[in-house]
Parts: sequence; C-alpha cells; structure tokens
Amino acid sequence: MSSLVMSMTISLDGYATGPGVSMENAMGIGGEALHEWLFDGDETDKAVGESLSAGIGACIVGRVMHDLGIPHWGDVPFPMPTVVLTHEELPDRPMTSGTFTYVSGIKPALARARELAGDQDVLLMGGPGVIRQYLSTGLVDELRLSIAHLLLGDGRRLFEGIGNPPPRFEAVSSRSSRLATHLVLRTVR
Amino acid sequence: MSSLVMSMTISLDGYATGPGVSMENAMGIGGEALHEWLFDGDETDKAVGESLSAGIGACIVGRVMHDLGIPHWGDVPFPMPTVVLTHEELPDRPMTSGTFTYVSGIKPALARARELAGDQDVLLMGGPGVIRQYLSTGLVDELRLSIAHLLLGDGRRLFEGIGNPPPRFEAVSSRSSRLATHLVLRTVR
Repeated sequence: MSSLVMSMTISLDGYATGPGVSMENAMGIGGEALHEWLFDGDETDKAVGESLSAGIGACIVGRVMHDLGIPHWGDVPFPMPTVVLTHEELPDRPMTSGTFTYVSGIKPALARARELAGDQDVLLMGGPGVIRQYLSTGLVDELRLSIAHLLLGDGRRLFEGIGNPPPRFEAVSSRSSRLATHLVLRTVR
Repeated sequence: MSSLVMSMTISLDGYATGPGVSMENAMGIGGEALHEWLFDGDETDKAVGESLSAGIGACIVGRVMHDLGIPHWGDVPFPMPTVVLTHEELPDRPMTSGTFTYVSGIKPALARARELAGDQDVLLMGGPGVIRQYLSTGLVDELRLSIAHLLLGDGRRLFEGIGNPPPRFEAVSSRSSRLATHLVLRTVR
C-alpha cells in the first residue's frame, strides 16, 4: 500500500505557525520566517523544496489550510488531486492543475486520497491540527520535517499531545543548510 | 572571549525530560529514551558523545541538575571545574576529577566559569530552566542540540517562552544516526 507522507516546517521550539493566524496572515505573526528556506534558500534547500512532491500522487489538506491557501495558490497546492478534510458536503471543485475533493473523516479521506494517488504516495500537507489527528492514529508512515533554525516563542505547535505511547521514528536522511535542517523519518512499527 | 556552549537532547516535540521528574527518576517518565543515542548509539552517535566536552574548560549546571546528578555521576559531570548556579552560599566541593563551585546569578556564574575555563569554552549543561534563562539573555553562543527521533508527548520543554525577538541561529553542522539528529548551531548577532 502507498505511504502516507507528512510534510511540515517547524521552528526549533516546535511551532508550525506564529501566533495570530488569520485570513490576512496565514502563517501567523513572524511565521513567514519558517519558510525562508523554501523561498530564499541555498542549493540544499532548493533540492529539498523540489523533492517535496516527488513520488506523490495525491494530497490531503485540512479545511482551514484549504480556505487560507486558495487565495495564495489560486490552484491546488501541487499539480495533483487534492482531498480536503471537512464535515461539510461540497461538490468537487476543479482547478487549473487538479481537483479539490471534499471528504469527512480522516480514514475516509485517506482511503479516497489513496484511490486518487494510484500506486504513488499520499502527501499530508497540514495544517498542524490535521497532522496531529493522523499522527495520533498511527497512520503516518513518513515525516518530511524541516526544522528552521530559529525560535518563534509562540504560535501553534505541530506535535502537541500526541499518542500514548507516542510514535517512534528512524532517520532515513538529514541535510542542513544555513537556514534549516531537513529530516526524513519513517515510523517504527 | 571564550564561547558559551549549550548542550541538550530534546525529543521531536521539544521535551528535555519526560513528566514527573524526581530524585528517583531524573529524566522523568519515558525520558531515558532521549539518551538512548548516547548509551546505545552507532558510530555517529559515539563520535558526537565523545565530542561533547571537546574544547571545553569548565561547566555550568543548575542546582536541580547538580542535586539529581551527583548520585549518578559520583563526581563532577565532566573532568573539569563545574560552576553550580544556586542562591545558597556553599563552600567549594572537591570531587575526584574536578571541583564544584557555587555561584548566585547567571552572569556571575558565567564570569566565574570563564575564569576557570582559561582560554577554553564554557559548557552549559542544564537543566532546561537554566538554559532558558541564558538563552533569554542572549548569552549563549553555540547550541549543540541532539534531537532524538521520538515523541514524548509530555514533560519539560527546553525552548519555552524565550525572547522577544527570539534568537536566530545558523547551522555549523548536522549529522543523523538512526536514533537522533545532532545539530551544531551558532547564534546570529
């Protein structure tokens, strides 16, 4: 079965956004600095950024990320089918390079994304709340975690109150640039 | 002037100990797993462990770490002079391979450790509360941060409520083993 791959950038103090996330400020106060590696990084960062969607056939995003992201993306976030996790029943929404499909429940959303991905993997983009739900159920196979070399001091943490016993991971690879350390971790089962 | 170097292992969710730290359980519930890399690691982990005190001429530890650590160490934590941060006035305590010196206040403790270190660097061992105090004042030059590839879910976080604006860092090096990623970061001033 294809893997469920989580991708997220956090600060050294574990924040996936700054405080005060809003429609006007999707990353929260100071949170844009988390993605400096993605937009202003070196060759290592560029290679990581380009590989984010490698081997991926479909995405899952939460409803909040979908609503905050559409004005920025103007499209699906990656050129592939994208499942949106929401309790609201909505018709498919075709965009330029893929279609948003709206599904309720994390397991049905994953099953639908796997169908859409064919023999490729499924990328869980976020937000943090959605990733926490998948991590808590042990459904995440791989973490592509970028740790930006800064402290935000406040905001929304990615890993908060997850699992008892909490999941364990092994490193597949790690690379650092000046701005961030990029880890690939696999869940140990 | 010699650098102030912080050394600490945290989990992916940022905890430096598990919950319920006590004299009987210095790392808290589940917290021993943080140091698996140090005691049961591979060649990379061993090299990092052996380099923890490289170039270091004196240590600083908090009073809690001192009290919890002495039954385990039976000595100073590394074979060098060790400054203990405490409000209590206590006489020097010579041990087998170094002497504990008791100083009140983080700046006087650093000044004393620098004197004792000569032209070598000063290692800030912890605990987390003491490291937070030094980070908040911007006095830490280098972070030797090991991130164990696991989630603890609860405990005491290393980076909690630090600085406004929070400090930024650049990577000097990063190495991963199966169990942990080892970062060396320098404060950007």
